[in-house]
Amino acid sequence: MAQQAVTPQSVDFSKWYNEIVYKADLCELSPVRGCLIIKPYGYELWEAVKSGLDRRFKATGHQNAYFPLFIPESFLKREAQHVEGFSPELAVVTIAGGKELEEPLVVRPTSETIIMDSFKNWIQSYRDLPLLINQWANVVRWEMRTRPFLRTTEFLWQEGHTAHATADEAEAETMQMLDVYADFAITDAAIPVIKGRKTEREKFAGAAHTYTIEAMMGDKKALQSGTSHNLGQNFAKAFEIKFLDQNNESQHPWTTSWGLSTRMIGAIVMAHGDDKGLRLPPKVAPIQVVLVPIFKNDDEKAPVMEAVARLSKELLDANIRIHVDKREGMSPGFKYNDWEMRGVPVRMEIGPKDVQNNTVALARRDVPGKEGKQFVPQAGLANVVQELLKTIQANMLQQATEFRDANIKDVSRYDELKTLMDEGGWARVWWAGSGDDEGRIKDETGATVRCIPFEQPGGSGTCFYTGKPADTIALFAKAY
Amino acid sequence: MAQQAVTPQSVDFSKWYNEIVYKADLCELSPVRGCLIIKPYGYELWEAVKSGLDRRFKATGHQNAYFPLFIPESFLKREAQHVEGFSPELAVVTIAGGKELEEPLVVRPTSETIIMDSFKNWIQSYRDLPLLINQWANVVRWEMRTRPFLRTTEFLWQEGHTAHATADEAEAETMQMLDVYADFAITDAAIPVIKGRKTEREKFAGAAHTYTIEAMMGDKKALQSGTSHNLGQNFAKAFEIKFLDQNNESQHPWTTSWGLSTRMIGAIVMAHGDDKGLRLPPKVAPIQVVLVPIFKNDDEKAPVMEAVARLSKELLDANIRIHVDKREGMSPGFKYNDWEMRGVPVRMEIGPKDVQNNTVALARRDVPGKEGKQFVPQAGLANVVQELLKTIQANMLQQATEFRDANIKDVSRYDELKTLMDEGGWARVWWAGSGDDEGRIKDETGATVRCIPFEQPGGSGTCFYTGKPADTIALFAKAY
Repeated sequence: MAQQAVTPQSVDFSKWYNEIVYKADLCELSPVRGCLIIKPYGYELWEAVKSGLDRRFKATGHQNAYFPLFIPESFLKREAQHVEGFSPELAVVTIAGGKELEEPLVVRPTSETIIMDSFKNWIQSYRDLPLLINQWANVVRWEMRTRPFLRTTEFLWQEGHTAHATADEAEAETMQMLDVYADFAITDAAIPVIKGRKTEREKFAGAAHTYTIEAMMGDKKALQSGTSHNLGQNFAKAFEIKFLDQNNESQHPWTTSWGLSTRMIGAIVMAHGDDKGLRLPPKVAPIQVVLVPIFKNDDEKAPVMEAVARLSKELLDANIRIHVDKREGMSPGFKYNDWEMRGVPVRMEIGPKDVQNNTVALARRDVPGKEGKQFVPQAGLANVVQELLKTIQANMLQQATEFRDANIKDVSRYDELKTLMDEGGWARVWWAGSGDDEGRIKDETGATVRCIPFEQPGGSGTCFYTGKPADTIALFAKAY
Repeated sequence: MAQQAVTPQSVDFSKWYNEIVYKADLCELSPVRGCLIIKPYGYELWEAVKSGLDRRFKATGHQNAYFPLFIPESFLKREAQHVEGFSPELAVVTIAGGKELEEPLVVRPTSETIIMDSFKNWIQSYRDLPLLINQWANVVRWEMRTRPFLRTTEFLWQEGHTAHATADEAEAETMQMLDVYADFAITDAAIPVIKGRKTEREKFAGAAHTYTIEAMMGDKKALQSGTSHNLGQNFAKAFEIKFLDQNNESQHPWTTSWGLSTRMIGAIVMAHGDDKGLRLPPKVAPIQVVLVPIFKNDDEKAPVMEAVARLSKELLDANIRIHVDKREGMSPGFKYNDWEMRGVPVRMEIGPKDVQNNTVALARRDVPGKEGKQFVPQAGLANVVQELLKTIQANMLQQATEFRDANIKDVSRYDELKTLMDEGGWARVWWAGSGDDEGRIKDETGATVRCIPFEQPGGSGTCFYTGKPADTIALFAKAY
């Protein structure tokens, strides 16, 4: 736990990120190319994401199930766009039980195909619909370039898979789940994501439409943080899923899928972190309050530790997630830096003077220095801390929202976009271009259409790239 | 949801099991050989197992983490016994990203090797010990014969991996985690498992000692339901893990591993089920109380559904897991059978007469017929139900304990063992045989040493097989 300086964000954001995820003890590289080891502190963060989402999935009527890790190679080939999109990234099992397999097994890159094969058996009648399934699982995509949490060969995620009796219901489900993602991101992760539709070029392989939540990172790049796909009848047809509708006519159902992954950990790190380390929103922080006892000798230690024990119990009873830093042989200053690196929202210091005065010192991670520090009475501490955690949660969302809004610029000419992409920021533009236009813009500037935001100003304008009349606003940005 | 009769346990227990897991909607076979699809009802049961264990792991100081699915082939070869034990069962990825891999990657059959490789980096000093890690994961073992939940190619489990500064501490951890498993099995799953040590022949590949919890199924066969391994310094030496102890001397730590899997679902089914279907202990039942509204026409429906809504809320507020069966076009009798098949501990019936009398009917799954049915006042219902669930939980444990104790027989001669194995039951014997003796007994009778139980009578006797003096009691049984 040596405390070397971190590369400042302003010097090299990418380097800052790579250093911070290790120093904050979230993860480490494994001996398997592109695979991550998620360490306990990182995994606790993932557990917070999981429970925040799982609760929302169940509240909207979804049930968890589990499907095989392996998918017969032939399944993937049934949906033409799907196999085209995924085949370069597959890991393939060819030997099992000491023998060569007759049909190779693909390690799932996503589970549409194997799940649709089951849905075929589960769906006979309109009474079986809607079918609302979610799976928590690991998936594997053999990526050329990997980065911790953002793009790894194996990653953890959830994938929802649903089937519906009408196109409208499938569309409503796709939207509902995007709203669930946005609500989690905004309310729990304090990330003010923007909801929108992906262009044809950027949509999921095999989808009719893909919707996305896009988040702005600290370097003003975008991170696609969760996607929800309306698959139309594409997969239902490819897997010959049929049901008898209320008029006793045979139809293909409309299906959806939606996923959010451990990438969200990267989003939380890059949306909130600073040069001192992580800054974790209280709702997802594994530790909300760290208690640091301060004493110089055994005479001081006894009363301090008595107060720490008493106050710990009060906070625990109020369901506040705490940790007492009892490590010996480390200075308080060292400990402060260490917990700042790990992004704990509130630090509570208790020394002999605090014991005397029946106070404690509370320091906020989101407000640096003296401004963020206050002395409060021990009486009624749990309430004060709970309110403080709410204040921090709200402040972090506000900070991120202000940062986002300050860095989305209206752009009306291509050269403006080029400049903005060099300087950093998202471009809001009138857009009437084609997929090929998107490709050229990407090649020349690195920017892609992040989404066609749901929130549209209305009216019309001139496409910044083609000069054609446009009635749609798009967001362009460089992205992870 | 057709209700054909199930093969009775007495006719063919194995067939009964295979039918019941599908009819109760726990799982279905997948198109991938030996891989199971765990359906929502089965997955909810697994979630109950997970949360019951996870809570206990965290209370004993363990933290969750996540390690890669893939293990370089060379890692497995480092511990000689380990690779010998697992190599016939491996699934191997040889192609990834369209290219042949230089070193094939094994899909983890268990994670000792990849985790020990990390522990090497995490452990430098005695201050880093004990290191207490758990992982929730899927693993793959290419089994020749598979059975739902009991033995599948891919299965879900948790695997604990810990490292300690002394042999005694490692032994204490191994025992502690066996106790955690036993406490879960007995308290939550109502399965009166027997704790004991595996013989050399039956221990885990690479372990110094293996401890087990053994459960008796309804056909009097044994099911190994969880194992805890003291790995000594075997893996620490193979992976060159070293730490500086308090005297500043370099030592290899002592490690343990322990696992419990979706096999526990099979244990719950076979320990408690009867010819009508599952019988789920209330503590792990996804639905604890099913409410069946009964009415003949719309006039009757309105007041019945009003009462159902009101009472549902009361039960939900008391944290009782309920389900209201609102399906139309099905007779109450059909619904009763359906919920009996799914093993819901309590059925609540509410008809027009109950509304009039301010009562409901409660029927216990564990006590068939009229004896298990009572009419109780609606006032104070939540308390009555909570007490009833406790009674059922206790009764199921008692039933299973009496069944187990009635079917463990003291056996002093080999021919007695042969007869008992034909009739069904476990044999308690004085034992002083060798691994080769175990092999011969297995070949001739199908029985294996399930464990050397911790609870020993003391004293000594004559080995039932070798005739040698023996001071140890062993349990022999046929097992899954």
